This record gives sequence, C-alpha cells and structure tokens, in this order.
Amino acid sequence: MAGSIFGDRFRISTWGESHGPALGAVIDGCPAGLPLSEEDIQVYLDRRKPGQSRFTTPRVEEDACRILSGLFEGKTTGTPILMMIENRHQISADYSDIASYYRPGHADYTFDQKYGFRDYRGAGRSSGRETSARVMAGAVAAKILSRLGITVRAFTASIGPIHAKEFDFSQCLRNPLYMPDENAALLAQDYVSGLMEEKDSSGGIIGCIVTGLPAGIGDPVFDKLDARLAQAVMSIGAVKGVEFGAGFLAASMRGSECNDQYYMSEDKSRILKRTNNAGGILGGITDGSALIMNVAVKPTSSIARKQQTVNKNNEEIEIEIKGRHDPLIVPRAVVVVECMTALTILDRMLVGMSSRLSDVVKVYNGE
Amino acid sequence: MAGSIFGDRFRISTWGESHGPALGAVIDGCPAGLPLSEEDIQVYLDRRKPGQSRFTTPRVEEDACRILSGLFEGKTTGTPILMMIENRHQISADYSDIASYYRPGHADYTFDQKYGFRDYRGAGRSSGRETSARVMAGAVAAKILSRLGITVRAFTASIGPIHAKEFDFSQCLRNPLYMPDENAALLAQDYVSGLMEEKDSSGGIIGCIVTGLPAGIGDPVFDKLDARLAQAVMSIGAVKGVEFGAGFLAASMRGSECNDQYYMSEDKSRILKRTNNAGGILGGITDGSALIMNVAVKPTSSIARKQQTVNKNNEEIEIEIKGRHDPLIVPRAVVVVECMTALTILDRMLVGMSSRLSDVVKVYNGE
Amino acid sequence: MAGSIFGDRFRISTWGESHGPALGAVIDGCPAGLPLSEEDIQVYLDRRKPGQSRFTTPRVEEDACRILSGLFEGKTTGTPILMMIENRHQISADYSDIASYYRPGHADYTFDQKYGFRDYRGAGRSSGRETSARVMAGAVAAKILSRLGITVRAFTASIGPIHAKEFDFSQCLRNPLYMPDENAALLAQDYVSGLMEEKDSSGGIIGCIVTGLPAGIGDPVFDKLDARLAQAVMSIGAVKGVEFGAGFLAASMRGSECNDQYYMSEDKSRILKRTNNAGGILGGITDGSALIMNVAVKPTSSIARKQQTVNKNNEEIEIEIKGRHDPLIVPRAVVVVECMTALTILDRMLVGMSSRLSDVVKVYNGE
Amino acid sequence: MAGSIFGDRFRISTWGESHGPALGAVIDGCPAGLPLSEEDIQVYLDRRKPGQSRFTTPRVEEDACRILSGLFEGKTTGTPILMMIENRHQISADYSDIASYYRPGHADYTFDQKYGFRDYRGAGRSSGRETSARVMAGAVAAKILSRLGITVRAFTASIGPIHAKEFDFSQCLRNPLYMPDENAALLAQDYVSGLMEEKDSSGGIIGCIVTGLPAGIGDPVFDKLDARLAQAVMSIGAVKGVEFGAGFLAASMRGSECNDQYYMSEDKSRILKRTNNAGGILGGITDGSALIMNVAVKPTSSIARKQQTVNKNNEEIEIEIKGRHDPLIVPRAVVVVECMTALTILDRMLVGMSSRLSDVVKVYNGE
Repeated sequence: MAGSIFGDRFRISTWGESHGPALGAVIDGCPAGLPLSEEDIQVYLDRRKPGQSRFTTPRVEEDACRILSGLFEGKTTGTPILMMIENRHQISADYSDIASYYRPGHADYTFDQKYGFRDYRGAGRSSGRETSARVMAGAVAAKILSRLGITVRAFTASIGPIHAKEFDFSQCLRNPLYMPDENAALLAQDYVSGLMEEKDSSGGIIGCIVTGLPAGIGDPVFDKLDARLAQAVMSIGAVKGVEFGAGFLAASMRGSECNDQYYMSEDKSRILKRTNNAGGILGGITDGSALIMNVAVKPTSSIARKQQTVNKNNEEIEIEIKGRHDPLIVPRAVVVVECMTALTILDRMLVGMSSRLSDVVKVYNGE
Repeated sequence: MAGSIFGDRFRISTWGESHGPALGAVIDGCPAGLPLSEEDIQVYLDRRKPGQSRFTTPRVEEDACRILSGLFEGKTTGTPILMMIENRHQISADYSDIASYYRPGHADYTFDQKYGFRDYRGAGRSSGRETSARVMAGAVAAKILSRLGITVRAFTASIGPIHAKEFDFSQCLRNPLYMPDENAALLAQDYVSGLMEEKDSSGGIIGCIVTGLPAGIGDPVFDKLDARLAQAVMSIGAVKGVEFGAGFLAASMRGSECNDQYYMSEDKSRILKRTNNAGGILGGITDGSALIMNVAVKPTSSIARKQQTVNKNNEEIEIEIKGRHDPLIVPRAVVVVECMTALTILDRMLVGMSSRLSDVVKVYNGE
Repeated sequence: MAGSIFGDRFRISTWGESHGPALGAVIDGCPAGLPLSEEDIQVYLDRRKPGQSRFTTPRVEEDACRILSGLFEGKTTGTPILMMIENRHQISADYSDIASYYRPGHADYTFDQKYGFRDYRGAGRSSGRETSARVMAGAVAAKILSRLGITVRAFTASIGPIHAKEFDFSQCLRNPLYMPDENAALLAQDYVSGLMEEKDSSGGIIGCIVTGLPAGIGDPVFDKLDARLAQAVMSIGAVKGVEFGAGFLAASMRGSECNDQYYMSEDKSRILKRTNNAGGILGGITDGSALIMNVAVKPTSSIARKQQTVNKNNEEIEIEIKGRHDPLIVPRAVVVVECMTALTILDRMLVGMSSRLSDVVKVYNGE
Repeated sequence: MAGSIFGDRFRISTWGESHGPALGAVIDGCPAGLPLSEEDIQVYLDRRKPGQSRFTTPRVEEDACRILSGLFEGKTTGTPILMMIENRHQISADYSDIASYYRPGHADYTFDQKYGFRDYRGAGRSSGRETSARVMAGAVAAKILSRLGITVRAFTASIGPIHAKEFDFSQCLRNPLYMPDENAALLAQDYVSGLMEEKDSSGGIIGCIVTGLPAGIGDPVFDKLDARLAQAVMSIGAVKGVEFGAGFLAASMRGSECNDQYYMSEDKSRILKRTNNAGGILGGITDGSALIMNVAVKPTSSIARKQQTVNKNNEEIEIEIKGRHDPLIVPRAVVVVECMTALTILDRMLVGMSSRLSDVVKVYNGE
C-alpha cells in the first residue's frame, strides 16, 4: 500500500535502490510444486540487460539472480521466494551533482516534495533499475502461465514516428530494437542514430499479445482484467498511456464498426469473433480471443543536451546531464511489460479459482 | 478482491444489479467530521441521470440517494456510510430475449464463461447503471477534496471524429454533450443525430483535469498515482484507453521536446514547469502542476442495427437489439470519470499521510 | 482497513448503527452457484434475536433479513450480495442521557477520543447489534461449508463460575443459556437470576468445535488459521480472550504431555492423534482433527446498579443505566462466534485453493 | 495473503527457511526521516539469540543483521527496507531423519497435507527461526513508537506452574528466564532443570504491557486493536492463547466488578480508571491506560524422550528427537511478542492518521 507491493494472491514485494548493495523481490503466494531455478530467472533478466547493442547504455550490469528462499530440491514449496541481484558495478560518483538540482522529466523534485529528501544516487528507487525486480518475479509468473498454455509476448510497435507495419514475431530477435518488422527496424535504427548524434532521445510504443488465455479471467467492476493490467503497466516508469484492442481508435468508431460479431468455428465447437476490437476483454473478463494491449513510452529523460531547470536553492540554471544513458527506453522495457502482464494475469487467475462453487467443491472434495 | 471493492484507506464496496431491488455503495474509512447530506450526493447522481436530452435514453431513472448509516447530526462519524438508490422503473420484460444469445460488445458471453450463468436482466452487474454507486461514493470524496482546495473536472474532449479545439469549461454546461467548445458541440450534435438515424452509436474521449493538487501525492513503483488512476478509469465499462499528459503523443516525441523544464515563479516562491507533457505526475507522484488525463470510450454496444451473433445453442443468428439505449456513453460517463478520479486521489492522500515521520509526530504528539 | 471489512477472498463489508435506519453487510467474493434465500439467513438471525427468554432483553427486534443483490433465480451469481435488516423498533429517547457521560465498560470514551464525537444513540457502531451483520454473512459462509462437509458449532461452556461438565450438544437447544450440560444449565440459570435481582450481570465462556475440516487449511507465519480466527472472535465486542486446544493450560504442561502423538486408524487409511491439545491446528494449518476454540466473554457492561463515572464536563458523577439490557451476553453471542468462525474458515479455504500448482492446473486445464 | 505479509500501512513481508541461505523481512511503508542503523536492529536480534544460558540451545546463531535498502545517509527514505541475516552455522545433516516421519506437536504433517511435500530441514518455514524476521521489523516499529512516547515491554509471567507474583521489570534482565520476580525466577530455574533431566520441556505465559499509548488507537468492528494484536501474537508458533486485561477471568466476574469506573486525575486534566480489567482497550480502541496482554506458550515440541508417531509409509513408530533444542520457548519468545505488538500498534496508528477530517486538513493544508 506504500507502493512496492503488487498482486492479491501472487503477491510480490520489491525493494532496492539502483546504487544500494542489492535489489530484489519476494513472492508470497507462489503455488507449491513448480520446478524453478536461477537459470529460469536469468533468461528474463538478460533480456533487459544493457550493453547489448549501441542503443543501450554501455554500463555493465551483471545482474546475476540469486534465489535465497522458497525452493526445496528444485521446486517451489509454497513459501516466500526471495530473489535478488547485487549492485556490483555502480559508481555513485557519476551521479553526484544531481543531488543539487531537479532533472526535467525525472522524479527528483517529486520525491523531495513527498519525503522531504531523496536518495539521489542514480535516481534511487525511481531508477529504471527497479524494474529488474519486476522481471525476476514476472519470470516465475510466466513459467506458471506456460504450464497453463498461456504465452505473453511483447514487442516494439513503434519508435518515434516509425511504426511496424508487418508483424513477424521472429524478426524481433533479429534486430536490437525488438521490432517485428524488418524494414521498420532499419528505419528506426537510423532515426535513433540521428537522435544520438543530437544528444537527444526517442519514445515509442510497446505492443503486447497474450495467447492461450481461457475465457472467464478477470472480475467485474473494479478488478476488470484490463483495469488491473492498466495499473500494472502504467506503474512502469516512463509509461504515459495504455489501451486495449482498438483503444483510442474506438473513440472515433461507430458501434456497428467497433462491436466484434460472434460466429461459430468450423467444427461448431467454439464461439469466435470476426474482429477483435475488444482486445480479448469484454466487461473486464477475457473472451477467449487474444488479449491485445499497447503501451506508450516517453523518451528517455536523461539527455546530454542543455536543459533549463532550477536547483535546490531555487536558482534557475542550465544543465547537461552526464553519464551513460539509453537513447530510448523501449527495447529494454519490452520484457518489463511482458513480466507485468504475466504477473497480473496469473494473479487474477489464482484469485479467480473460487469464482464458481463447483470449482471449490472440486478442489476440496475431489468431486 | 472479487472485484467490487476499491481503495485502500477510503475503501468503497459497491453492490447491485441494474434490475435488482436496489444498488449502492458502502464507504469504509471516511474521515469523521465532514458535513454530508443526501443532497450533496444527489447533485452528482443527477449529472448521470438519463432523459436529460435527446442524446440519452428516455428511460426514467429517479435515482434518489438514501444514506442509511455513518452520519450523525449531519456529519460523518468515521464509521461506514451506506448509500443506495432503489430501482423503481426497471421493466425486466424489455430484456427477456437477451437471455438466449450473446450481444456483440457486451459482457454476456464472458459472464457465462466465468460464472456458468448470468443475470441477464439489463446486463446485471455489467450494466452501466453500476456506475451510480461509483458516483455516490465519488461525490463524498470530491467534497473532501474541495476542503483541501482540490478540484476535479472532466469534460467531453471528442465525439467520434470531432474534437474540441477550444477549452472553455463554462461551455460544458450549455450543451448536452458536455463539450468545452461551442462550435465542436454543434458539429458533434449533428454527427450523433446522423448516427441515431442509422441506428448506430458513437465513441469519444473524456478529458479530466485536476487542479489544486499539492506536490507529493502518489507512491513510487506500483502505486504510482497515474497507475492507480489508470486502474480506476479503465474499470469503467466501455473505457478502452487512458493516457496522462502528452500520453500516446509522447511516444513520437524527442526527449528534448517531451521533458518539462523547470523555472521559478515571478515571486521566486514556487517551482513551475514551462510545459506539462508529464500531465502533473513524475515518477508516479504529483509535481504541483495540473493533473491531465484522457480516457477513450468506445461506442455504445447496444445498437438497433442488425448484427450477427450466436446463441446459447451455438447457432449463428441475426439480431436487432430493442429497448432504450443512449447513442453515446460519453456525456453521462463524464461524471463517472470525475468520481473515480476523486476517489483515487483522496485514497492516495489518506494513505500518504504517514509518508513522513514528521507528519506522524505532528498528528500524534501535536508537535 | 478502517475497521468494517473482513476477509481476503470472501470479503464482507458491514455497516449500520443500532439506531440508524438499517444495518447490513455486503459480501464480495461469494462463489457463484449457491442456492440461497432470505430464509437461510433468517434461521441464523433468529438465534441472536432477543426476547426469547427472561435472560435476554425484552426489546422487540424483528430483524427481518432482506437480500437486495447478488441472487438470480435463487442462486448466487458471484457478484456482491447485500443483506440488510431495518431498525424498526429502536426508540432513541431511551438512550438520550448517555450522550453526556461515559458508561464504564463501554466504548463511549474511546469513540470520543478517536473521532472527536460519537453517535450516542444505543452505542452506535459499537452496539452489540452490529453483530447482526456478521451473522447474516456468516450464515452464507456456513451454508457453503456444509456443502464441503464442515460443521461449525458453538455453545456456552461456562456462565460465571459454573462450567459445563458434560457435553451433549442436543442439550443446548433445551435450555435458554445454550449449555450442553443439563445440570450446569440449571445452576447457571439460578446464578443469573440472582445477579438480575442484584441489577448485576455475568460473563462466560463460549466453546466452538469445527468438525469435518480437511487437513491443510490455513497458511504459515502470519495467516495461521488460529491467528485469523483469533482476530475474528476477538473482534466481537465483549470478548476478552481466546485459546485453542489446551490453550492457557498448555502453559503449565510438559512437552511430553502436551504433544499429540500420532497413530494409524484401524483400517490404516488415516493418520489420527491420540489427544488433541493442539485443538486441530499445527503450525497454523489444520491437521484433520476437530478444531477446538474457547472464547472468554466479559459481563454485560450496561448494569442498572449505581456506578461512578465522569461526564463530558469532567465532573465525577454517579449513574444508573436505564433501559433494557441482557444480564449476560453469552447465549446470544454463541451464534456470532459460530458465524465469525465460519467466515474465517471459508475465507482461508478459498484463498488456499491455489496453494498447489496441481490444483491450479486442475481448475484451469481440467486435468 | 498467502501468509507471510503482515500489516496494512507499515507492511512487512518476511521470507526464509531455517536452513536456506538467509532469511529476512522487507518493510514497505516505513515513514521517511527515521534515523536507523543495523545496530538498532541488532540489539533486538541479540535478545532472541540462543546460547545465552543453559536454558537455550547451545547452537551458535550469529544472526548479524544487514540492511540492503531503504536507507540514505543514515535515515529511512520512505522506500522499502530489506533486512536479512545469513544462515551460516546450520548443519542440515542434523535433521535428516525427520524427513521420513511426523514429529508430534510440529507442523510436519500439516505442511505435507497442505503443499504435498515440505522442506524438512530444521522445520523450514515453520521453524522458530522464522521469528528473527519479525524481530528485525519489530525493532524498527519500536523505534518509531519510542519517538511517540510509547514503550512496549514483554516479560515471562509464568513458567509451567510457577507464576511471577511480584512485578519488578528490572529483575527480568537479571535472570535467564526474563521473569520480573526474583524468587519465582529461582523456582522456575529449578523446575526447568528438572525437566531437562527428564528430557522434557516446559510451557509458560508471556505478559506484555504497553505504556504511553494515547487514547483513540484502533478501529471499530473487525480491526479492533485487541483483535489485530490477537492475530499478531497467535501467529507466533507455539502460542495457544491470548487475553487482554482480566481476560479469561472476566468470564467469571460480575459486571459491577469487571467494569472499570472512571474518575478525574487530581489536577482535573485527565480521565482515569480506578481499575484496568479492560486492559486499556474499550470497543477495540485504546482508552489511554496501559495496554495489558497475556500470551500462552506451549512447551517445546522437540523433546528427546521417546514418542509414538507414524512415518510417511503409514507405519507406527517410536522416535527420539535428536539435536539441540531449547527446553522452553518462553524466554526467547519474549522479544518476539514485544515486536509483534509494536508492529501492530504502529500499523494501526499510521492507518488511523486519517480518522478525523481535521487531521487530514492539518497534514495537507498545514492548518
């Protein structure tokens, strides 16, 4: 409730500053019996690791995941799982002058206003590095979802003005921007290179598609699945908007155009929809089609160009932010969106296990 | 956690179906000492009442608010406040045939999938009428916020393809679409009238501006104020997207363009920003400038045009939805967005009272 | 969190003062598909109704339960259930003078200290009448538990110095004190009659036994089943202590005496315990034997004898409390203990459905 | 909700097994601005350290607290505080045979029933060692309470049949059993020595007194302060009962005897009570007098005497538990009771900051 706990039944509690000794997450409520290893987590962590292309900071972050509790003989025991990474290569000196002023676009000023002071080393708790903890926890959630036949995949839908026009997910792994469109990826790389020369940065949109979801996940009214997902992804630093299915386009549609009409699958076994403007969610509950979400990400706030700001003595000053910063947040945030999505969906599925009395009876009476 | 409870400290629990005997909300956690009457609530309820123009259903909904607990001698006592309205003019017969099939764009199919059956009278719990309970609770929250100098105002930013270009809030009350731009409102009325003739419906965008907010509201990581607001408004039926400040536009901006630069007010007493692309929130915490949010609303799903769908026997059928339906949801949803925003902000402010040890000491030791 | 919400998955939100227009409860999270009627609730409510013997207040409380939401065609729909009773026969005039002073043993002083003032009509929210809402919600929980083969039964274990020595549950219904021992019940009636002549009141102990509970209910560490039950019953006004199994006696036992040794049932199919000092809970989790709990209830605070106290002007005064009061709380509180126990156990069972990955897979993949 | 998270506003999340690499706690919601160091925590941890007398296991547990987040320049920042201790001297081999059978009085059987298997090394998550995490978090809570003038002190009220008759708190530190009565402590030491020779163990009662508490802490109905405290202390392994003020004795009292009568302090400035049978809480809210609680602790379950039990093959067997075990839990649990009490009281105080509208206005508008 003070901000660092997420989820009702698969509940994670994250901690750690970018320049403290370590950061991590505790999961309370992971079902017992899941085979789990540090390698399972590491695969996800490595996806947000910097230094993998010229579009990410050359900072070395080893980010080796350690699991300190909740496992026994390679399986989850049902008790809390602590996962953490140590901060080995952070050099606080790089950030020393930001103590005295407020960087535009950052949370420096708002933390000071809220708490009276702030941990100014590398943005402290508002650093993008905080998302490592989300990724560790999300990796566990994703592993459980995969057991249930559910796949969460995020990708780069646009970089600045350049939008992916084609969708070939295998392309994502072949370009450093994680775009599912080869041509768009090339254009986007040129675009970002240009911005880097101008000491500027780019925003973008992350798309996310969930397949294999059964119908019936999510709850009416306040805990609609899209509502919970909206909180989940808006809570990622730098995210400024979220939409489902047709999203903001739905606002200019007519009802006859926006409604997804139902039909029967050829073998008459399943109810399908001719379109998916709903993005897989109706009344907050999944309808069995793919869940579709878009997430708007602002440009990196830390830029090396001159900017106007004020310092703690209320003097107007001009600054140039030094240090190693990504020219865009999007590619490294893709896995974070994926993980927050997995965490949210799993949580709602575990909560939803008791929605029907017949399922309660099934679990407890074995009927 | 099963969906109908919202908030951590100003916690509301809503209940009721569109065609049951009544519906309402309980507030647990309202501070003691607030003067409150049924009239305070009624003013808000009347704003979502149908039948006020040709753009809303001619259904008569009296929606007279009754408060059954939590008040003593005209003031809140700190104990739960139950507010409810009785459903007097609902005629279930109007809706009887929807029991057998799944209306496109509605939650009929998903409720059946989740619970095994559904209350099909007037959409039951997924009816727009559910939002009355949000409005009653939100009216109380808004009254407390006004004590703290905070004003929440929502309005119609666009209807279908027609966007308000000017912003004169006083105009909102002069047109049935609640638009802050006289010309746009006229164009929009024509647009909607045309759709009505075609038995079709329109979507739109609701804008929301909060002024008077102190800096420092909201929490880092998962309980960012924008994250909590995103859940709050996405949980309103028919909402498909939400954005803050520059929102989706930020995705195509450069950092140097998107960052809001700080400067000092003329009297040197306050830190201000030259732009407000952040929408008043940095790192999930308010920065003292206006909070700006846009909410995308899909067109009304219930349209009288022929639509394809399937029935509960898995037969493909063609339907025409009868009954009295709004050609657009936006104008009546404006007050709902306002109320969800007020509820969320107040809740986070009450939670945030203990963020600083000095405030804890102030309240308990009177220092 | 402000006090009137209980439970994580089967969550109840109660409201109402003893002398307001009505009081009730909302249940959020009741599984769909339970046949339920107002009569199911009324049976439980009638058990706490006063006026049934000379040992309860002759006040007439009709307490007719109405269900206003959450049911469709006689079954729960999975959406919130609002249940309420109207306060028809409350005469506020009876209580008018207690506005000015603090009754010993009551919450008058503490409410004033907490909120700055209080609803002094019949104790407002701290009235015993508040427990009606718990009973309505508990009746629903008990009905679900009975589907799972679980029976919760409470009874009067002692009245003042008189303890039941025999345990024949059928006796409870044959005496107005709900004691399972015929002779003890007669002695206790004489004892209470004597106190009534002296304008005094009696305390007592309520026992509670739960049978049919599977092993494995409850969670480690903070959400131990006994911990949650302790909160549940200590939250009933007038309760001053709670113990499980050997309880306070365990403090003077040796380990060799207190440990319950295991053995096999005759047919070798079940693990049993030779004793039950644990009261059916080990490490916070049920062990498959009967759950045993004792609850200490203080004497009714409202007595007609002269008492010393102070008034709101800080003057020491002598008072005689008028009005109609029970000479003991215990018999009417029996059903309240039963209901809080049922609510707690059901809630933990619903939460616990996701403890094993194999059960998650069973519910979602039908394996 | 899966068991290892406690508190609403000062929320702790604990993790770790007795024989894993480490165990600890995260605090989310600690107010910013509290000076805090590892030494503050260590003082509390050392009080539950074994090996301090012949009445505790000679196991060496260094239990050096490390703080990995949430501090900056010696003060809490308002963000999560991770505290942990590494498990250096645990030798899993000591416990290897308990994998195959169910120890009487332990949670072996119930964990197996709940999760399907268990971490059998040193009782895993149900080990008393789990309480170290509570103590680390409780030390922080106690430090804040001391700033508010509130002192929480627990002590040994009885060991087996020997009860402290005098109350001199300074005596507690002079005897290894933490008893406030010199003579009783001597008798108790003899008693326990005798049990040790017989390879047996002893239970006891822990008393707890909180002074300096303002009136008005706690909430009506379910979140009564005594209800929350009951959950808090019942959640400590081995606790079998809890009572407040007169507690179980109140069950045999008369109303005229049990009611605490009010009077004015000599200088007429404060309302006082002539007795304190309520234990400082009326209607779940503190009344400004000392809070008094007793907690019943069962004897250590691990005893070296022969015991009957069954193994995982459903065979009845006879066992002798080997290894190093305390002959009684009470003295080391004293600090755990203190810490759970501090955590609960602080949490309710932080939640309660918004009980009055005037306090909300004071914090936000500075009025």
